[in-house]
Amino acid sequence: MLKKIFECEPIINASKRLQQQIEFILELDKLKKIIRQTSLLDRSRNENDAEHSWHLAMMTMVLAEYANPEVNIGRVLRMLLIHDVVEIDAGDTFIYDESAAASLKLEREKNAAERIFGLLPNDLGLELKTLWEEFEERKTLDAKFAASMDRLQPLLHNYFTDGGAWAHHKITADKVLAKTKNIGEASQCLGDFAKSLILDAVEKGFLESK
Amino acid sequence: MLKKIFECEPIINASKRLQQQIEFILELDKLKKIIRQTSLLDRSRNENDAEHSWHLAMMTMVLAEYANPEVNIGRVLRMLLIHDVVEIDAGDTFIYDESAAASLKLEREKNAAERIFGLLPNDLGLELKTLWEEFEERKTLDAKFAASMDRLQPLLHNYFTDGGAWAHHKITADKVLAKTKNIGEASQCLGDFAKSLILDAVEKGFLESK
Repeated sequence: MLKKIFECEPIINASKRLQQQIEFILELDKLKKIIRQTSLLDRSRNENDAEHSWHLAMMTMVLAEYANPEVNIGRVLRMLLIHDVVEIDAGDTFIYDESAAASLKLEREKNAAERIFGLLPNDLGLELKTLWEEFEERKTLDAKFAASMDRLQPLLHNYFTDGGAWAHHKITADKVLAKTKNIGEASQCLGDFAKSLILDAVEKGFLESK
Repeated sequence: MLKKIFECEPIINASKRLQQQIEFILELDKLKKIIRQTSLLDRSRNENDAEHSWHLAMMTMVLAEYANPEVNIGRVLRMLLIHDVVEIDAGDTFIYDESAAASLKLEREKNAAERIFGLLPNDLGLELKTLWEEFEERKTLDAKFAASMDRLQPLLHNYFTDGGAWAHHKITADKVLAKTKNIGEASQCLGDFAKSLILDAVEKGFLESK
């Protein structure tokens, strides 16, 4: 859509570089249509990837003090803002969906990263793709803290909706504990808190223990 | 909801400080329900404040090079992430709505800031409230660049939906030019681009000139 307008109509005042940047910005709008398994807290609907990404960035601002002091919070924010952009093409994969999760997801997301970050001028596209790859690999301290936010937020939503997606998909506490173990690796305090929510959910009867 | 759980049930492992932080994070979920006048590009629905805030933060990452070199992009990101949080209480005010816009809006939003940032531990709450006030005042270079993103995004959406909210509310080009003048003050290049979109919208007939 955009290319046609820019190419045909010289009235639009934009360099080739700015055109590519605007095209990417317009493409991002599609992330608002990618629906996740997590419900809003009022249970009115499930959240989408764009608002989820915003929520994780806000959590990072508010919980930064629990991160390892070497974590660069500014980089974590950027990482979380872009971490789900590939799902515009690849779709959301529920973390407890073992059938689709493994290699196919990775393949789909790599192709998506090529296409979507490829809309940008080369230098910018490479910068964002590299940041996304760092998040996916979960090796650096920044990526580990970012990933802990991405696990803690759905945990909060499931806990505060009496089970939410856990109940809907019959997920058990041992699986939730395994998937959220990374929170404690990024921050002992947040990990202890996460674990106590899970144990309390079992206690209250909205999360099966096994 | 949260307070009750924490106060009554010692199984939840969280300091008073962490409890306040989590309560704020849960409160933020409500921003996903505040609907703006701007339509998604596919015209399927209007966007909400949470996904809008994410979109502005992404625009900032992608368009940073057009900012005055003294702009601190990390601060702009934080400012944009929180800039609409007060609308949880105050609601979205359409920028062309002159009846409700002026002093009442300010009053509503100040009260909202007191309550919502007041959920946080004092130091953190003050930090975020101060950042929001800086955005609202539009005096610093960081706030000016943040505000330019907040004007450019709806302009893009209205242009690329053949008029969108402009057409719906019978907004004229002179008003759009006045409301988006700040884009050129933050970045000449982006300002020229914005202006050419507006003129082209008039040319194409989906924005009335007067």
